[in-house]
Amino acid sequence: MQNVISAVCIQCGAEIEATPNITTCPKCGGIMDIKYDYQKIKRKLTKEMLSDRKINTMWRYMEFLPVTGESKVPKLRVGWTPFYEASRLAEYIGIKKLYVKDDGVNPTASLKDRASAMAVVKAEEAGMDTIACSSTGNAASSLAGNAAAAGFTSYIFVPERAPKGKVAQLMVFGAHVISVKGNYEETFRLSAEAIDHWGWYNRNAAINPYLMEGKKTVALEIAEQLNWKMTDYVAISVGDGCTIGGVWKGFKDLYEAGFIDRLPRLISVQAEGCCPLNRAIAEGKEWYPMEENTIADSIAVGVPRNPDKALWAIRESNGVVVNVSDEEILAAMRLLGRTCGVFAEPAGATGTAGVKKAVETGLIKKDASVVSVVTGSGLKDVANAMKAAGEPVAIKPDMSLLLEAFERI
Amino acid sequence: MQNVISAVCIQCGAEIEATPNITTCPKCGGIMDIKYDYQKIKRKLTKEMLSDRKINTMWRYMEFLPVTGESKVPKLRVGWTPFYEASRLAEYIGIKKLYVKDDGVNPTASLKDRASAMAVVKAEEAGMDTIACSSTGNAASSLAGNAAAAGFTSYIFVPERAPKGKVAQLMVFGAHVISVKGNYEETFRLSAEAIDHWGWYNRNAAINPYLMEGKKTVALEIAEQLNWKMTDYVAISVGDGCTIGGVWKGFKDLYEAGFIDRLPRLISVQAEGCCPLNRAIAEGKEWYPMEENTIADSIAVGVPRNPDKALWAIRESNGVVVNVSDEEILAAMRLLGRTCGVFAEPAGATGTAGVKKAVETGLIKKDASVVSVVTGSGLKDVANAMKAAGEPVAIKPDMSLLLEAFERI
Repeated sequence: MQNVISAVCIQCGAEIEATPNITTCPKCGGIMDIKYDYQKIKRKLTKEMLSDRKINTMWRYMEFLPVTGESKVPKLRVGWTPFYEASRLAEYIGIKKLYVKDDGVNPTASLKDRASAMAVVKAEEAGMDTIACSSTGNAASSLAGNAAAAGFTSYIFVPERAPKGKVAQLMVFGAHVISVKGNYEETFRLSAEAIDHWGWYNRNAAINPYLMEGKKTVALEIAEQLNWKMTDYVAISVGDGCTIGGVWKGFKDLYEAGFIDRLPRLISVQAEGCCPLNRAIAEGKEWYPMEENTIADSIAVGVPRNPDKALWAIRESNGVVVNVSDEEILAAMRLLGRTCGVFAEPAGATGTAGVKKAVETGLIKKDASVVSVVTGSGLKDVANAMKAAGEPVAIKPDMSLLLEAFERI
Repeated sequence: MQNVISAVCIQCGAEIEATPNITTCPKCGGIMDIKYDYQKIKRKLTKEMLSDRKINTMWRYMEFLPVTGESKVPKLRVGWTPFYEASRLAEYIGIKKLYVKDDGVNPTASLKDRASAMAVVKAEEAGMDTIACSSTGNAASSLAGNAAAAGFTSYIFVPERAPKGKVAQLMVFGAHVISVKGNYEETFRLSAEAIDHWGWYNRNAAINPYLMEGKKTVALEIAEQLNWKMTDYVAISVGDGCTIGGVWKGFKDLYEAGFIDRLPRLISVQAEGCCPLNRAIAEGKEWYPMEENTIADSIAVGVPRNPDKALWAIRESNGVVVNVSDEEILAAMRLLGRTCGVFAEPAGATGTAGVKKAVETGLIKKDASVVSVVTGSGLKDVANAMKAAGEPVAIKPDMSLLLEAFERI
């Protein structure tokens, strides 16, 4: 960890050595944050050096990551995902500049690969060969895929209600999947006991501070893909808070090391039916639990596990919060598909739904520039894609009927 | 088209100008092939120049493509997909060297994006703004996605039996989808009439010779990713024959232009339940239609539309043919997932199933080196992934039950 200084508790400020298997603060139980020597990075790394690098993965930013050159970089090609200028979408929404970062084009089709790839490296450094987590979604499949590629064993705890398709994906990757006859809370508790009992490496983004360091690479890429000229805003969907926290950490890193000269404001987008963090910001109060009523399952988190870093990121960036309905999410899926050729899962399109609503309601100005992050692929949730998509024209194989049908449209 | 000389009919040898909207041979109806000036390419392009290029898409090989510098390169980031050395899989199969090219990591999650991206460029050159095809699978979704990203209109004809999920993906991309109450043959005929009637650009890989030029980029990438040291074999699943034809064209291009000093032998892998092309090779006879009995829907083609180029490629490469059962395909899906973290759809894992069987039956030697191409993502066909994957351990949320369950495994 050439440029890492320590791990610091964001609650009590305790500073400890950044060993590979740290979890929460040993003093107060708070969430830890990895601290870097930015002056050292500044001296050693330039924009030109980065631009000349041929490493087209998240590992091109080695100096900003908690790994040494000797760390075995995992095999799966995670990161350096496509970045599109979405001029037709910008025009439709009525905003000056809009970019789409498509993190659905990752090996297991979500941004979570960035965190899981990091988990594999740190588990290896810790001398462990088994990694575990509890999750029903993208974190689970990304852990299973990245662990398999690196030759690690994975144990994944899912509540019995987990969609069979997602379970199948885990099983194809050879994860040991434990289907728990209970709700998510019970599943999480059983996984915690098992991790303790067997001493597995803990891949839980809110407990293991290194995972956010993986997630932050999406921000590093966005900045470089913008040629270091930051947009006014960056929009992202928010569930447990780890991803928006990671995005902010990435931009702050670049700012501290002199790679960008201004920080973007974050647009935190949640579903109307499940927005405890945005509610806390809007009300200026503490967050409290909320029901999970949304089709965007990846961000349906009524009890976010990383509220502190998320709220801090939104507040420190002078961010804005937007809540969108399921209908608005489905409409954003269609918009991304039709104007960009990007197929997003509901949570993946939520950021874009938020940008549209923020422009409509005057929350952000029409002459603003925005990056919208798509966090996962629509192929992960075909059922909701069908809700978004509408019905095709159905006719018998007869040209005259086709002509008639087209006249009716 | 800086290095293109002409289009040549592979049946009658007629040579015509390579205009953007050529289809089949105007003289005999045969399939056309694009002819290049390899000496010109040799003089202008070196391996070092390629290696220094920062274009991480299929368009990094502009000199080998039927496009000019002025051609508007489409926005979607197609190609330059991951290439993995699969040492654990090689060990399991019992072969010296095995590489996996994961073309499921394309914008719409299949190799077909390479052809559709090319279709968009050629349609633009032809001054057309609407592209059409008939298909139920990857060609359809890749056309819909690439057309949407480039601002083109697409019309896609699907038989009514097309899976709803795939139709939904098309609709999300904003394609005009016509669901035809009939079988595939009737659907194809209606699409041909409609293309004629409205003068749409024809995206049909067996009719439009440029699409194969897109597909061949997978071979160009494989060679560069191998640092121009070709393996003994390249294995790929085969349906209508366009993809294996394109792969062979790519390697031949590189050989003619002096970028590789030997050609690989092709391993043509089909499903036992649908293998008309492999049967023709094995029997040394003409091909004739076959039923379509396999779970690998993308290669379930009983009447291949590009048999000539496919058979020619297998024969000219001194290739081998292998047919695999559905069980062997499902096993290959598990193998790719568990040893490489690559999630393939059935047709995507078929090439790997063929490599395994070819080694087991002594068709290829254990000291051979092989590249296996994964042509599409497993997220496209979750139902079959579930067949491949098996069942998780199901228990109540109780640590003592978990301990018991693990003892039983």
